[in-house]
Amino acid sequence: MNIAFQGTYGAYSEQAVKAYFGTHCHTTPCEHFDEVFDKVAHSECDFGMVPVENSLAGSIHRNYDLLLRHQLHIVGEEILRINHQLIALPNVSLTDIKRVYSHWQALDQCEQQLQRLLPNAEKIQTFDTAGSVRLLLDEQRTDTAAIASRQAAELYQLPILHASIEDDPTNYTRFVALSRYPYLTLSNDISYKTSLVFAAPNVPGALFKALAAFSLRDIDLTKIESRPLQGSPFKYLFYLDFLGNATDTPVVHAIQHLKELATLVRILGCYPQADHTVLR
Amino acid sequence: MNIAFQGTYGAYSEQAVKAYFGTHCHTTPCEHFDEVFDKVAHSECDFGMVPVENSLAGSIHRNYDLLLRHQLHIVGEEILRINHQLIALPNVSLTDIKRVYSHWQALDQCEQQLQRLLPNAEKIQTFDTAGSVRLLLDEQRTDTAAIASRQAAELYQLPILHASIEDDPTNYTRFVALSRYPYLTLSNDISYKTSLVFAAPNVPGALFKALAAFSLRDIDLTKIESRPLQGSPFKYLFYLDFLGNATDTPVVHAIQHLKELATLVRILGCYPQADHTVLR
Repeated sequence: MNIAFQGTYGAYSEQAVKAYFGTHCHTTPCEHFDEVFDKVAHSECDFGMVPVENSLAGSIHRNYDLLLRHQLHIVGEEILRINHQLIALPNVSLTDIKRVYSHWQALDQCEQQLQRLLPNAEKIQTFDTAGSVRLLLDEQRTDTAAIASRQAAELYQLPILHASIEDDPTNYTRFVALSRYPYLTLSNDISYKTSLVFAAPNVPGALFKALAAFSLRDIDLTKIESRPLQGSPFKYLFYLDFLGNATDTPVVHAIQHLKELATLVRILGCYPQADHTVLR
Repeated sequence: MNIAFQGTYGAYSEQAVKAYFGTHCHTTPCEHFDEVFDKVAHSECDFGMVPVENSLAGSIHRNYDLLLRHQLHIVGEEILRINHQLIALPNVSLTDIKRVYSHWQALDQCEQQLQRLLPNAEKIQTFDTAGSVRLLLDEQRTDTAAIASRQAAELYQLPILHASIEDDPTNYTRFVALSRYPYLTLSNDISYKTSLVFAAPNVPGALFKALAAFSLRDIDLTKIESRPLQGSPFKYLFYLDFLGNATDTPVVHAIQHLKELATLVRILGCYPQADHTVLR
């Protein structure tokens, strides 16, 4: 199996791939999220794995937009604890560090700890966390550290200067696995989640009525996300996740009901729910 | 009047300040959004102006988080058409350009036009659009262009190499004006908008019930946005905008009703609605 992810080897997305598909699968790094979708769509990879939401920073909107643009199916989800490490070249100590490389979101998530440990260090944005470790290694910079995962430190064989440098330990990212084919083998023994996107007409109460289709049938929504409708300023698409299998009778009825009210409804996938007990 | 904004002189935020408060007000540039909130909170500035939503890219979440963290009031809104220009030093032509500087969002919004005009140019992320023009000027780079507003080109007296370089002309940003004091003079002659934030208990149907408080009273929601609740992975706060004045009887009742259901309710502001006829 060959699975596409965005970033450099050692990225959190690659970690999510290994956690979901097993450590022996083959991984294909991609520069942009679009490329992950394209590689799956064009059969260059069997699956893709993309982040959709971080518990501190919120949704990764680009991937919601790409889900709509492509005809792929969500076939699984994985929740990963994000645990940032401060990584440097061998024999470098904290007092040598004048610059820190990382993705802006990782720099943001370590703001207070960096302020405490390295109050004068310049923070330099890079395109991804694991890539910042490779950059450090390529440049052989002894005045610079990078923020990335433990896996990235191990892969590039660099020491961790300071472990768990994130400000808030409740830092999790939810990833979804993408396939050209829907998840088919539905069983009664496990819980499923369904993801869909809909557009409500621009009339008062439209969102309320759309949510009624689910609430009146006691279907539990786990997430709602609004995204701008391209070409219509300040009108929105809504992405919903709810507990249930797309073939359950109440879910079938809820989707039928939603179709009466909405101007667009598309099921993005129905898949086994991730183990949420990893969350503290 | 002294108004704080994020970015360099010539930024889109400064343009929103001038459009809302008039061209003669004094503006104070700030490096980060936090600083805008701080300067207003500590009486260093009378007002602040921050973007909350772009019609293509979606919400600027950092500012939603800062609205909750600070005790400021939204007292107005301004909708600005975002019209990007490709700017370079005098006597530079398109064929000289090997690099383009701008904020990642502006680079993203001009992707297809850049691909057509400058297929081989390297795209370099900077912290803001107007700042990328200043950087170009400081570095006197004849192989580089910047993407920013017409105002930034005029301010730094640089020519526009290619006008309206954005891919999609339906590009608008909504800004809100912040004050230490709520908007007080409510009149019956104009329409108002109210913004609030609430947290719903984590039980099925909680969001539906919260929205019912508004829909049952025919109050028109104009926006709903979910943000992660810090410290509680995959639980959310909801930011609502609706048409109406916080002293209208149905609005007073809706807020009372919401307080019965929600674990937190805070009114962020009640202010005159911007002129939406600017939208095509």
